[in-house]
Amino acid sequence: MNTQPDHLQFNSSDKPHEECGVFGIYTNEAVEAARLTFFALHALQHRGQESAGIATSDGTMAHVYKAMGLVSQVFNEENLSTLPGHLAIGHNRYSTTGSSHLRNAQPLLIETLLGPLGLAHNGNLINAPQLRRDLLQRGVGLSTSSDSEVIVQILAGGHGNWKTRLRMLMAQAEGAFALTILTRDAVYGLRDPWGFRPLCIGKLGEHGYVLASESCALTTIGAKLVREVLPGEIVCLDKNGIHSEQGATPQQFSLCTFEHIYFARPDSMFQNKVIHLIRQQLGRALATEAPTEADLVVAVPDSGTPAAIGYAQASGIPFSEGFIKNRYIGRTFIQPHNTSRRNSVTMKFNPLPGNLDGKRVVMVDDSIVRGNTAGPLVQLLRDGGATEVHVRVSSPPIKHPCFMGVDMATYNELIAHKLEVSEICQRIGANSLAYLSIDGMMRAVGATNADGTPNGYCNACFTGDYPISLQEQENGDKFSLEGVFGS
Amino acid sequence: MNTQPDHLQFNSSDKPHEECGVFGIYTNEAVEAARLTFFALHALQHRGQESAGIATSDGTMAHVYKAMGLVSQVFNEENLSTLPGHLAIGHNRYSTTGSSHLRNAQPLLIETLLGPLGLAHNGNLINAPQLRRDLLQRGVGLSTSSDSEVIVQILAGGHGNWKTRLRMLMAQAEGAFALTILTRDAVYGLRDPWGFRPLCIGKLGEHGYVLASESCALTTIGAKLVREVLPGEIVCLDKNGIHSEQGATPQQFSLCTFEHIYFARPDSMFQNKVIHLIRQQLGRALATEAPTEADLVVAVPDSGTPAAIGYAQASGIPFSEGFIKNRYIGRTFIQPHNTSRRNSVTMKFNPLPGNLDGKRVVMVDDSIVRGNTAGPLVQLLRDGGATEVHVRVSSPPIKHPCFMGVDMATYNELIAHKLEVSEICQRIGANSLAYLSIDGMMRAVGATNADGTPNGYCNACFTGDYPISLQEQENGDKFSLEGVFGS
Amino acid sequence: MNTQPDHLQFNSSDKPHEECGVFGIYTNEAVEAARLTFFALHALQHRGQESAGIATSDGTMAHVYKAMGLVSQVFNEENLSTLPGHLAIGHNRYSTTGSSHLRNAQPLLIETLLGPLGLAHNGNLINAPQLRRDLLQRGVGLSTSSDSEVIVQILAGGHGNWKTRLRMLMAQAEGAFALTILTRDAVYGLRDPWGFRPLCIGKLGEHGYVLASESCALTTIGAKLVREVLPGEIVCLDKNGIHSEQGATPQQFSLCTFEHIYFARPDSMFQNKVIHLIRQQLGRALATEAPTEADLVVAVPDSGTPAAIGYAQASGIPFSEGFIKNRYIGRTFIQPHNTSRRNSVTMKFNPLPGNLDGKRVVMVDDSIVRGNTAGPLVQLLRDGGATEVHVRVSSPPIKHPCFMGVDMATYNELIAHKLEVSEICQRIGANSLAYLSIDGMMRAVGATNADGTPNGYCNACFTGDYPISLQEQENGDKFSLEGVFGS
Amino acid sequence: MNTQPDHLQFNSSDKPHEECGVFGIYTNEAVEAARLTFFALHALQHRGQESAGIATSDGTMAHVYKAMGLVSQVFNEENLSTLPGHLAIGHNRYSTTGSSHLRNAQPLLIETLLGPLGLAHNGNLINAPQLRRDLLQRGVGLSTSSDSEVIVQILAGGHGNWKTRLRMLMAQAEGAFALTILTRDAVYGLRDPWGFRPLCIGKLGEHGYVLASESCALTTIGAKLVREVLPGEIVCLDKNGIHSEQGATPQQFSLCTFEHIYFARPDSMFQNKVIHLIRQQLGRALATEAPTEADLVVAVPDSGTPAAIGYAQASGIPFSEGFIKNRYIGRTFIQPHNTSRRNSVTMKFNPLPGNLDGKRVVMVDDSIVRGNTAGPLVQLLRDGGATEVHVRVSSPPIKHPCFMGVDMATYNELIAHKLEVSEICQRIGANSLAYLSIDGMMRAVGATNADGTPNGYCNACFTGDYPISLQEQENGDKFSLEGVFGS
Repeated sequence: MNTQPDHLQFNSSDKPHEECGVFGIYTNEAVEAARLTFFALHALQHRGQESAGIATSDGTMAHVYKAMGLVSQVFNEENLSTLPGHLAIGHNRYSTTGSSHLRNAQPLLIETLLGPLGLAHNGNLINAPQLRRDLLQRGVGLSTSSDSEVIVQILAGGHGNWKTRLRMLMAQAEGAFALTILTRDAVYGLRDPWGFRPLCIGKLGEHGYVLASESCALTTIGAKLVREVLPGEIVCLDKNGIHSEQGATPQQFSLCTFEHIYFARPDSMFQNKVIHLIRQQLGRALATEAPTEADLVVAVPDSGTPAAIGYAQASGIPFSEGFIKNRYIGRTFIQPHNTSRRNSVTMKFNPLPGNLDGKRVVMVDDSIVRGNTAGPLVQLLRDGGATEVHVRVSSPPIKHPCFMGVDMATYNELIAHKLEVSEICQRIGANSLAYLSIDGMMRAVGATNADGTPNGYCNACFTGDYPISLQEQENGDKFSLEGVFGS
Repeated sequence: MNTQPDHLQFNSSDKPHEECGVFGIYTNEAVEAARLTFFALHALQHRGQESAGIATSDGTMAHVYKAMGLVSQVFNEENLSTLPGHLAIGHNRYSTTGSSHLRNAQPLLIETLLGPLGLAHNGNLINAPQLRRDLLQRGVGLSTSSDSEVIVQILAGGHGNWKTRLRMLMAQAEGAFALTILTRDAVYGLRDPWGFRPLCIGKLGEHGYVLASESCALTTIGAKLVREVLPGEIVCLDKNGIHSEQGATPQQFSLCTFEHIYFARPDSMFQNKVIHLIRQQLGRALATEAPTEADLVVAVPDSGTPAAIGYAQASGIPFSEGFIKNRYIGRTFIQPHNTSRRNSVTMKFNPLPGNLDGKRVVMVDDSIVRGNTAGPLVQLLRDGGATEVHVRVSSPPIKHPCFMGVDMATYNELIAHKLEVSEICQRIGANSLAYLSIDGMMRAVGATNADGTPNGYCNACFTGDYPISLQEQENGDKFSLEGVFGS
Repeated sequence: MNTQPDHLQFNSSDKPHEECGVFGIYTNEAVEAARLTFFALHALQHRGQESAGIATSDGTMAHVYKAMGLVSQVFNEENLSTLPGHLAIGHNRYSTTGSSHLRNAQPLLIETLLGPLGLAHNGNLINAPQLRRDLLQRGVGLSTSSDSEVIVQILAGGHGNWKTRLRMLMAQAEGAFALTILTRDAVYGLRDPWGFRPLCIGKLGEHGYVLASESCALTTIGAKLVREVLPGEIVCLDKNGIHSEQGATPQQFSLCTFEHIYFARPDSMFQNKVIHLIRQQLGRALATEAPTEADLVVAVPDSGTPAAIGYAQASGIPFSEGFIKNRYIGRTFIQPHNTSRRNSVTMKFNPLPGNLDGKRVVMVDDSIVRGNTAGPLVQLLRDGGATEVHVRVSSPPIKHPCFMGVDMATYNELIAHKLEVSEICQRIGANSLAYLSIDGMMRAVGATNADGTPNGYCNACFTGDYPISLQEQENGDKFSLEGVFGS
Repeated sequence: MNTQPDHLQFNSSDKPHEECGVFGIYTNEAVEAARLTFFALHALQHRGQESAGIATSDGTMAHVYKAMGLVSQVFNEENLSTLPGHLAIGHNRYSTTGSSHLRNAQPLLIETLLGPLGLAHNGNLINAPQLRRDLLQRGVGLSTSSDSEVIVQILAGGHGNWKTRLRMLMAQAEGAFALTILTRDAVYGLRDPWGFRPLCIGKLGEHGYVLASESCALTTIGAKLVREVLPGEIVCLDKNGIHSEQGATPQQFSLCTFEHIYFARPDSMFQNKVIHLIRQQLGRALATEAPTEADLVVAVPDSGTPAAIGYAQASGIPFSEGFIKNRYIGRTFIQPHNTSRRNSVTMKFNPLPGNLDGKRVVMVDDSIVRGNTAGPLVQLLRDGGATEVHVRVSSPPIKHPCFMGVDMATYNELIAHKLEVSEICQRIGANSLAYLSIDGMMRAVGATNADGTPNGYCNACFTGDYPISLQEQENGDKFSLEGVFGS
């Protein structure tokens, strides 16, 4: 299951996949931390639909409940009632083929010498193989292939109090991590020194504080956005309020640009900018870079809509709806009678009759990954009467996989790794095709230095310039769990 | 579960509920009728999400499979393989509290003296109590409280061949019915003499024909829209192609206006008009009738969007998105910690920050039924920074229940039955509130006679002028199943 | 699933299958009829394990709940609470391949001109095809292939009050039926004129009466056995207590002998004789008819045990346990690695070491149907050290199928239809094999006239002398549902 | 769920509960280790019904599948096919209230520096709190409250090869453990130095070896019993066949006597004695110690049957069946209408009419724990006509809990801890009550020294003489998981 803003997806989906959403809450008030976590996870549902879980502490004992499914499917009054306490963390996990097991659901909850320890993790440690090896050599058995188990065992095996251990963790862990951590008495929020995955702080009522992957979760539960957790920062929520320390030296800020392009909910804010408006701005930049003569701008709904509106505004070409999207899309293995690739797309989209007839159409989407749906969509517009279809993409060509926690695709699957833009245009049957430039994208998201150079985002999937060396990652590792356990 | 274009709904929903979607297919070609029916039912999913079913005939035997859930949940390759044949009918049913039982799922399939008989029914017979009584007096036992069982038993007890029996049925049944009927060798489509519920005919390939509640199902399976079934018409699909006869004298055409306003998918067509464009036109008419000074037009997504676009176009006030809708809405019984009504709405909608700040906003929705969500939505816009909120509704006030198959609400629940518009405005906390007039609505949907009088639609929920006398309906009926069986 | 006194069966089972268990209750006292029915159905669980259901009336409305599974799996406090009332009927159904559908679960509950009508049916109408045809010709559509639906529609279509209609039913229905029937105000018990299937009456407390397939259900709920319902009798339980009339002329009493041999629970009583003691007597008769030199008598547990004890008593050869039976037998489709037939039997039985070593063993079973388990059991005894194995069967060879509601097997499957006793002996690898004679069996069950001729039981599966002519049954019937509906 | 030889239990059960059954297999032949493990676990189902699992190794990778339910419910061809390999271990777990979670299912499978490590554990470590503390202090986080996780982490944290680590484990672990352990290339069997829980070795075909809790599992898969694993022994099955070493100094042999009395399947063998015959001998000893005048000996089926037969043989009083047991007993929460304790027993047992009338009856059971069912059973016999009921128990009074892996009950629940025998007799309403003496029991099981003193079994539940000091156990332990995690 991916993170397009649809409920469930057919295989016609052509979007990168987010890893997870995390949440944490500490409140002194007489409210149920688990209940608020439920609503917050619901608001973060787009970040992962495979499993959901909540862990709480009542100051004495810790509790956890997690299961496969959407937040609203996993939780009911009965299991919420087994989660007492005024501290909680929560997690949504997305689904990938082959690892869709309950044992990978989070939060993890273990006992340590310091008491209970819960973890919700968004991201990916690129030196997990080395860290696993260290743990195994230290004599710790590992029961999953998850890098999250690595994190909790590093913390369990650390020295000193929790803060000391969290700093030690930061000194060892390389890669992307936005963590919410539950102990008996406190909730911690950690963000890796590059700031790959987002994490923000909110204030709830007089005394409560929360942590969330995106600010939309704050709005839903009535909390106010305070600020984002800084790269390398450790935030602690406890009975004394909120405390912070720098856990590791911040590195070049490297928030994943795809959060702006596609992942985040449009009403979330990063760096004080609303995602929805950034996406409109991406569309405006695209119109400037890649104008075309046309009668109509349409979006690939829903994620392409803000960029299409921006394109229309900047180009002066009217915006209109071109597709109707079936919102009841669920997973099915029923194959259409006709084996053409078009059919799986027609399960999800129909062209809007009347709007397209005789028109030259600009079709705006936010990204193309494998390129398997753009062609059928172009054809649907032509079937609906469009005389020309000009495809505009509000992000640059994706040429490299992500190793920081996004299930983007492999090199071999990325159409822009294999083909030139002109070849892709021909493949999808468009009259023209243009992507937004990297510079244009960075200006639109506002991530430029004074001299206009890109600054402060990870664009590795477009550029191949990974903020962290991937040497370790690329070594085969005989200690990796894949070499020991079968699926 | 209702028919808003979302997957699943919280109790924050304030829309009328459709009864069902129906489909039928006859093909001489070597394609699986059941498989095409699956895809067609998927396209009609918005008309009912409680249960789904398909019945087929292979010319010798009939088969049926139905279960609770969405089409994509109900069917898989295994159960589809138990549905051989080149004839099929299909059905989506919506869910109401208390009757959510598998025994109410359709199609019904029974044995009769003429062989198998399958039925998929959209609508409601207002003289069902009388027809039930007739059947009971004829000595037929009835196992459900459904008027659909009444229809199949009337057909089973008729005389002559199927066409004769269908004409007899039409002579007896009063109320709303769009039926697809399966026999051993043919598929029939029937529409009541008033044409309350929609039903259209499509052509599939060289020799195949299909029947569907809406044309969007035709598009999805690659069929071409031929025309709508006429009020009182009986259409027969068999090895000789398509045949038609007038089964009953057509009455004043009374297609439910709410199909235009809300029920139908925007890409469906009625009377050669695309629903999406009609909805835009409703918004334009609303702008003309109820203009206001404002900075921004926003829609209550998704169903209010076309009208909002139309309002913006006609008023010259810019359209923008004002709400983000959580598309992962599912049924939950988790109550928010705060008991204010606002909370269930915030599960589903967040205001879009940045767009609203300091703005005078027009909020356009397609309808208000009970009025329980408009107030929280107005408040959300104010929370998002709107200085004024003017609510505009692209249909007239709903003052009367529907007895023709739409679960609208009772008199006591309809806010416009109980309160004046000014009182509703105060209740929902808007700066102003205006509904579209009935005349304006009818002109927008194009249903006017030459002299401008409304013509050809059922507006009873707005006017109380029911096309059929409801005398029978209002009598208590000692024979009704409710008097015999408990839930 | 069959009716051996085990929970669930592998395919190693070689027993005939019972159709169903039925129950009915009327009580004026403030007890829940549904709750008592639950416990009674639990006691009758051995008569059917596929589905269970209860229908109740509270004097105004009728209610029903039924589902697939064992009684203890189907019912919980929540669904029991939806079954108010002081009248109830209940039903256990056994499972056959291909008809294992919820739509076949009972009780049936329909509305009729006289109010609600519920039915629980044990047996099989041999003229069901003719009765179906009559109903179809009367214009009644039928939704299942069940002869039970035929019964309720005949009753719905009858004239006069319920008693009149029940007499009319008895005049038409041929074959085996033990029925409990629920109306708004009364519970009826009917037994066919031959008395094929058992049905008894019990008294509960001061004013309550119950009906049950076997007396063990009475014991479980604390009711006292009054007597059996007579062949052709109609018993009515209502506010006036218990009433009875002869609904049809009794025919030659034809209770299924297999009730004594295998079906009934050992603690049930027929004709004032405890089944357990009858089975011991069958074993004694077998010892007299077919003595052998041996050191040990063992049973095929559990159903063979009483006969083995009787054999041991009469022969003077010590009884001991020879097999251990795995009581956790459930349905599995896991095939043993070794494809020999022995393996499925070893899932269920192990020989008891120590007891068998060097012994000449008599292995007593109550019946052999297909003959597929006797051979592996003989081999297990040899593996356990037995030097000789003499098989003794406490019923005659089964040579004919049953058409009265027992799923016995087809002619082609019955080993005794195909092979001589000596051939069977060779096939199963026994040193000797003997069956009880029909005369011996009838004397043991006490069913002899003064001159010693068999009297009062149906032995058709042994003799081929069916109490009712099967002419109709053997005609192909173009109106049968099998000719109309697929599986 | 307990381990009575019934499928599922109502709360009327009054037996101690076994912990688990374990199995291990190594075969060079081309057979599927997982499939044989399935059949073996099925034969061991009586030792645990909550969950079942199998872990395999194909020499390269390890695989595991486990789920809640009976073996036949957990496994199917699809999940068996995910368990390739020629080495396997398997586990059945019993259910206790409150810990019935999948996370407690076994086998455990972890990655270690030496490769995969799988564990199936029967027993209980009494120094688990200390071992947990050691692990926590070593910095290992623990995710369950299970002592089995303690074992695998001790092994993961050991030094040297597997054999070295297993010896180290034996040096640390106090209490009861019969383990089967899977590594990439070998299967190990370990039994604690006291031999509390049973474990035996079998030979399969030419080259294969197996390990099982009881020999009945060997019989089922066609393996031959070789011998039992010795206390303190480590057995290794690998490509070189079978190897053994003494892993720890054997202590006073302390096999749980309740294996003989109740737990083990009657066809299993311990010390070359068949359990069934031992139980008969217990009954004979009981007849000698506690004779009575009576007409009939009946058993509380099924586990009391062998002792009742022995009692009958020794006393000369005829044995007969007195109860019929409902074998379809499942878990239900339906409460009988009558709140007397009798009712839950009547769900499970009916007296056998005819056998009891006017008789003085000896009722033999194997044990009494809480004493909540004996009274209702005595009453049932009286209801069935018995004039006197003399209760005889083929084991001594249970006065002390078990800390070695049997869920016996707490001191406060044990009726013989609270009451004298004469008081229990009065409580259960028997004419007389006698238990077997400890000496009598030990002679019957053959566990006496030359001078007749008891030798070689753990009788702590009768005597309070625990073979291992319980000092640690009785200390509250602030590190115990119960102090950290809620349920």
